[in-house]
Amino acid sequence: MADISTTLPLTRDSVIEAHKLISKYVHLTPVLTNRTLTELASTPRTAEDLEGTRWAGRTPARPVLRLWFKCENLQRIGAFKARGAFHAVEKLKQEPGWLEGGGKEKGVVTHSSGNHAQALALAARESGIKAHIVMPDISNPKKIAGTKGYGARVIFSGSTAPEREAVAAQVIAETGARLVPPYDHPDIMLGQGTMGIEFQRQVAELMTADTEVDGQRKLFRAPATGRDNAGPGVPGGQKEKAGLDAIMTPCGGGGMLSGVALSCEGTGIRVFGAEPSFQGADDGKRGYESGSRVTAVKSLTIADGLRTPVGEHPWSVIYDRRLVSGMYSVTEDEILAAMKLVFERFKLVVEPSACVPLAVALFDEDFRAMVEKEAGEDGWDLGLVFSGGNVGVDAVGKLFAEAT
Amino acid sequence: MADISTTLPLTRDSVIEAHKLISKYVHLTPVLTNRTLTELASTPRTAEDLEGTRWAGRTPARPVLRLWFKCENLQRIGAFKARGAFHAVEKLKQEPGWLEGGGKEKGVVTHSSGNHAQALALAARESGIKAHIVMPDISNPKKIAGTKGYGARVIFSGSTAPEREAVAAQVIAETGARLVPPYDHPDIMLGQGTMGIEFQRQVAELMTADTEVDGQRKLFRAPATGRDNAGPGVPGGQKEKAGLDAIMTPCGGGGMLSGVALSCEGTGIRVFGAEPSFQGADDGKRGYESGSRVTAVKSLTIADGLRTPVGEHPWSVIYDRRLVSGMYSVTEDEILAAMKLVFERFKLVVEPSACVPLAVALFDEDFRAMVEKEAGEDGWDLGLVFSGGNVGVDAVGKLFAEAT
Repeated sequence: MADISTTLPLTRDSVIEAHKLISKYVHLTPVLTNRTLTELASTPRTAEDLEGTRWAGRTPARPVLRLWFKCENLQRIGAFKARGAFHAVEKLKQEPGWLEGGGKEKGVVTHSSGNHAQALALAARESGIKAHIVMPDISNPKKIAGTKGYGARVIFSGSTAPEREAVAAQVIAETGARLVPPYDHPDIMLGQGTMGIEFQRQVAELMTADTEVDGQRKLFRAPATGRDNAGPGVPGGQKEKAGLDAIMTPCGGGGMLSGVALSCEGTGIRVFGAEPSFQGADDGKRGYESGSRVTAVKSLTIADGLRTPVGEHPWSVIYDRRLVSGMYSVTEDEILAAMKLVFERFKLVVEPSACVPLAVALFDEDFRAMVEKEAGEDGWDLGLVFSGGNVGVDAVGKLFAEAT
Repeated sequence: MADISTTLPLTRDSVIEAHKLISKYVHLTPVLTNRTLTELASTPRTAEDLEGTRWAGRTPARPVLRLWFKCENLQRIGAFKARGAFHAVEKLKQEPGWLEGGGKEKGVVTHSSGNHAQALALAARESGIKAHIVMPDISNPKKIAGTKGYGARVIFSGSTAPEREAVAAQVIAETGARLVPPYDHPDIMLGQGTMGIEFQRQVAELMTADTEVDGQRKLFRAPATGRDNAGPGVPGGQKEKAGLDAIMTPCGGGGMLSGVALSCEGTGIRVFGAEPSFQGADDGKRGYESGSRVTAVKSLTIADGLRTPVGEHPWSVIYDRRLVSGMYSVTEDEILAAMKLVFERFKLVVEPSACVPLAVALFDEDFRAMVEKEAGEDGWDLGLVFSGGNVGVDAVGKLFAEAT
């Protein structure tokens, strides 16, 4: 993690630089489509569906949405966090004097109970750097074992932020390790943003590539609705330039959302953030609407990767520079319904946090009405990020047992 | 379902003909690889692992296996059964006099509680043919709803084979519908075998294609072990001809296993069958070893697609013509362990039946010792069929709750 004064400027070019730096370490994860989900997103909800929601009595929106999914659940360590961690480590290795000063032996440190812990452990190991990971002692045993499995030293702490920070500070004092925060740093943001660059390129490629092999349909290619049956130049026909109209990502600390927003700057692709609303985890949305960043959140939403407030650096991109066009939030039930669809119709394992953007696209009438208004009959090619897939079979059982 | 006297001969060429006939209806499902599973398969089990198994005290085998997975869980209706059903319907449409005799209105009928029911319903609907599906009244409500969702008429029966057959016979008497059995017919076998043709082509293509895009690793490409670091011609180097050495499929009624075996005839690719051992569901293995087909099975294995005995026509290919080189079986615990790995490490949803071949590759010391002996240090590129993904989130919860 390079010193903050030496980081690259927060621009699309810097994201492209970051991508060059980490591309040999991270997977080019696939972009997939799913006919059922695209049809569902483009089907108006019924008045019955809306009963008992905050849109009861409203005429259901009629958006046309063609969905594209960036499968970061298939990324190394099972989540996008590998991108930021590898970028932070590479930048640290480039920092003048760090390697010479025994940096590898001193190591890196972070406090995280989630995917960032495993991501940093992996990135450090691949460069022969020691990793110290501070985890709350109530952490999921699978995640503790996973982190140790990547060769990291795990140090336990209490579960509040001050408790974790105190233990991390102690580790730094004892070892000289460098702190690599999970989201609130330009190196992390630029690293996570690399998925946005790939997403843009991959969709443009898929839209122009052949969708058949010897007359047989390839899977994951043809969008199922909207203008894809018309030719270029025809009203309702193909866009002049193939590619996404918008991307929506989950938003916890905002590292990914701000990075993807940077990756889209100047491209015309709009970026949206998606959050759980449970117990105030929609801090990003509330801050965006009030004009003032919310700095504390205490939520136990099932979308456990999104329980943190948006960090200062991500906020500067998301709100101050308005590179994010809007924030949306969904309920726990909507997240579970989206997860069940992904599981049963897409046959993909995704963690609850990863389903939040899809839940917005399928269920949030504010979002859907906005798309109808902005995109009209042409509709949008909307990119959704499946941010991670780290959920055990036992956890899936519990989530859906509680829900029924 | 064409009359049995008019079906194509059971040869590889007939499978290729079947593929041409159905390729516009079925997905070209992807072939994926997974580094973790390939490494696991190529790591000897420990003596500790083998304690309490039938291999206790034996020296663990050291096979080199590079695994390739044909993802029929991503096939239409979520299982390979779509192939056989579309082929049966296409052959029926070609049968002289059937269409002219009001065949579409008379329709097709089958008795099935599983994926074949949905597959036939879908295939019939796409040709405007009526479908009558006889299902046991204890069938999974999700499967009943799924079958009705494809526009089929569902008729309930008792759950024993004679009860189901009696109701099907009654439907035929009343409607003139044609019976389309789930596996014991050449048209079905040839249809299922089409996946074998694709599998062979896809792996050969993936082995020779570039595995990098702009220096970035593509997912699902590079096998992780064995000879892939050496060049062609070097001892332990690349094979003269890129492609699979062997394929293993699940075996229930044997439609898929025999079809895939036909697709490999004359190619040098060996074919194996995998079954659950629970309550005698390993009828194929027992029959293969005793030389006499087992004609009745009563097992409640969790691999619910594999509870049926091998049919007569599949048997003629599997055993009489020896196009299958061996049959292996695994325990319920081994199936669950494989399913958990696919879910948590591959991030793919597969049903228990689909995990049986992987369980054999990972856990069956007889199979593993055979590979070590036959393949030596070069190892094998082994194709495994993920046959289906139709398992709900609730069912996954139950499977793993019971197991722990």
